[in-house]
Amino acid sequence: MQKNFELLTTDRHSKARCGRLTTAHGVIDTPAFMPIGTQGTVKAVTPRELREMNAQIILGNTYHLFVRPGLDVIKHFGGLHNFMNWNGPILTDSGGYQIFSLANLCKITDDGVEFQNHIDGARAFISPENAMEIQAALGGDIAMALDECVPYPCEYDYAAQSAELTTRWAKRCKEAHAVILSEVEGSRGTTSAVSQRDSSTSRRSARNDSGARQLLFGIVQGAAFEDLRKQSTQAIVDFDFDGYAIGGVSVGEPEEEMMRGVESAEPFLPRDKPRYAMGLGTPPQLLEMIARGMDMFDCVLPTRLARNGTAFAAAGTLNLKNAEFALDKNPIEENCTCQVCREFSRGYIRHLIKAEEILGLRLITLHNLHFYLNLMSRARTEIESGTFDQFRKAFVAEYKTRDAITVV
Amino acid sequence: MQKNFELLTTDRHSKARCGRLTTAHGVIDTPAFMPIGTQGTVKAVTPRELREMNAQIILGNTYHLFVRPGLDVIKHFGGLHNFMNWNGPILTDSGGYQIFSLANLCKITDDGVEFQNHIDGARAFISPENAMEIQAALGGDIAMALDECVPYPCEYDYAAQSAELTTRWAKRCKEAHAVILSEVEGSRGTTSAVSQRDSSTSRRSARNDSGARQLLFGIVQGAAFEDLRKQSTQAIVDFDFDGYAIGGVSVGEPEEEMMRGVESAEPFLPRDKPRYAMGLGTPPQLLEMIARGMDMFDCVLPTRLARNGTAFAAAGTLNLKNAEFALDKNPIEENCTCQVCREFSRGYIRHLIKAEEILGLRLITLHNLHFYLNLMSRARTEIESGTFDQFRKAFVAEYKTRDAITVV
Repeated sequence: MQKNFELLTTDRHSKARCGRLTTAHGVIDTPAFMPIGTQGTVKAVTPRELREMNAQIILGNTYHLFVRPGLDVIKHFGGLHNFMNWNGPILTDSGGYQIFSLANLCKITDDGVEFQNHIDGARAFISPENAMEIQAALGGDIAMALDECVPYPCEYDYAAQSAELTTRWAKRCKEAHAVILSEVEGSRGTTSAVSQRDSSTSRRSARNDSGARQLLFGIVQGAAFEDLRKQSTQAIVDFDFDGYAIGGVSVGEPEEEMMRGVESAEPFLPRDKPRYAMGLGTPPQLLEMIARGMDMFDCVLPTRLARNGTAFAAAGTLNLKNAEFALDKNPIEENCTCQVCREFSRGYIRHLIKAEEILGLRLITLHNLHFYLNLMSRARTEIESGTFDQFRKAFVAEYKTRDAITVV
Repeated sequence: MQKNFELLTTDRHSKARCGRLTTAHGVIDTPAFMPIGTQGTVKAVTPRELREMNAQIILGNTYHLFVRPGLDVIKHFGGLHNFMNWNGPILTDSGGYQIFSLANLCKITDDGVEFQNHIDGARAFISPENAMEIQAALGGDIAMALDECVPYPCEYDYAAQSAELTTRWAKRCKEAHAVILSEVEGSRGTTSAVSQRDSSTSRRSARNDSGARQLLFGIVQGAAFEDLRKQSTQAIVDFDFDGYAIGGVSVGEPEEEMMRGVESAEPFLPRDKPRYAMGLGTPPQLLEMIARGMDMFDCVLPTRLARNGTAFAAAGTLNLKNAEFALDKNPIEENCTCQVCREFSRGYIRHLIKAEEILGLRLITLHNLHFYLNLMSRARTEIESGTFDQFRKAFVAEYKTRDAITVV
């Protein structure tokens, strides 16, 4: 089997790594940040703009797409790539996290989750098996196993039972995904069989024309408990996924617990597979996670805070609504190479935000995504130069969060 | 004095004309459509996107900019071009129409208008003289004389008095503008004098580095009354403005009255000056106005309707919210050369609009502006080929307004 992940450099002073992950729609240099495209679009941004800022992969939210426009629509358009006109790699989450956080949860059993969606209240049921079917139909390059993400705080007993459920689901996801892949493989030479079988249409996108298959990542849980994190990691790794995610972090816990959650799992993860810390975080948190051996990240902060007028800079966040910026002719960040900082002043962007002009949040969104992507690019360079540890410490010391940020 | 407007072609079958208007920031081919940049931005669109769709001029709303961010801010940034990073031509309106339609009107006298703005209720007074000062500070390439735009319907007596007031104001605007231009001219050789005088800073932008001066257009009023339209036009033309606008149309009157308003004024307008029909209109209305000798247009429809999910096409408007488009793989308009139609389907855009994603209104806005600009480009070609009249009739016959449009 083709090796999808190549570990290129390991930092001598930390667990930071540089790698290269190959998917059906292209290569991702790690550490990598994945802009979030919840409803089939990174909010306010075109695919062309994503390419121009060198985004190598985006994330699609399975739950949102399942609810609206629905799988039939996305299948009709030949998968998420075609639907949204993004031809780079896509990772789809399992939908589990959104079911637990957004939907009206009805019942969770070994079989799966029954819920009413938050848009029209329609009931639906998602099992590990159809989480795989759904993600095959979406046609992302990386699918995620269905997991239960427990809230913070969480009792030990519930966390233990839940982590075991996630393990049983992971096993079923792995098996179901293998069946889908083999069916796709089997149907490639027999076109007539494909056309006779409805399900094959949706499954075809699980493997693209070049033959690169959809990868599947397992998710580690275990809440804030070191022993559960260890057990969960060992159990999940046993199933030999293409990559591993740390779930159940950035769910409201203090930052030290978030770090411990990752530190408890990391030693049991194989070196030769990519590691994805889910739902993180602030710029310093990303660097701390890289130092703890994490490779991939997704976070709503750059897009969500932009819509509130908050911009990222090396010295910390700026709330561009503030009156202090009204006459400021400087770009959001001096020496920033993004298109926004080359063309527009803080004073102009402040005016747009105050006047509730869409262009204001568009410009801050572009800058913020560039900031996150550029931070990953810089981290890769520093790791390759053997200077990541100094860079991380200097960055974290320099970065001041001037405005309270809540990751929700 | 340099001639700013060159009449290139006159249609033999109608009053349609092709011309070229030269301003401090570039040339405008007429008939021309001006996208509206109310608050220092064409809503949801970047200057780069405007350039890519070959917009040759945009309109800035003096009232909105006067209220927010305020003149001091725009002066600080060196004028509207620098503030918003648009280096093409800008026409600024006088602010009169918005004072009458948006602000809390306090008192209108021969001196000017006193009002409370609609944002924070602050009182302000605008006279013909400071309407010129304000527009000089904004630094647009074309300024508009202050006028009173009467509502529809309007009594004859009020319309007559109001048109006379507009004439008296036009005279004062012309004189004040000439003073500003001559002061700028006088200050060009004497830098020390400029730096000593506060007002000169704002006035310098009335003439750019190349020496091209800010043009000033007069506005014809007269409501729905043919004799008042004639009198107003003759009186305004006597002041020898750089161009002439027909005001008080598209204020709620039936379409025939709108046409008659323009037809009553047009014969008294000089052939060698550009004519601007203010606040118009639907695509067929624009072609009808071109056939009646109008050269320049501005309208909120392409941007405002986009935000409501409505797209323009040669066959009429499409409401992309409609369920019929859910599985539609076609672009908004077949053979449309805009970036949106090259890259995105109706089905995808419908999903974005239904999901209230900003990208949805962005994409429709881009398409709609392209549609209007392209319609003007096509009209110019047809006029030059001597086929405009057939084109207009065929276009108007083909165009079906499937959804009710209200120009407000």
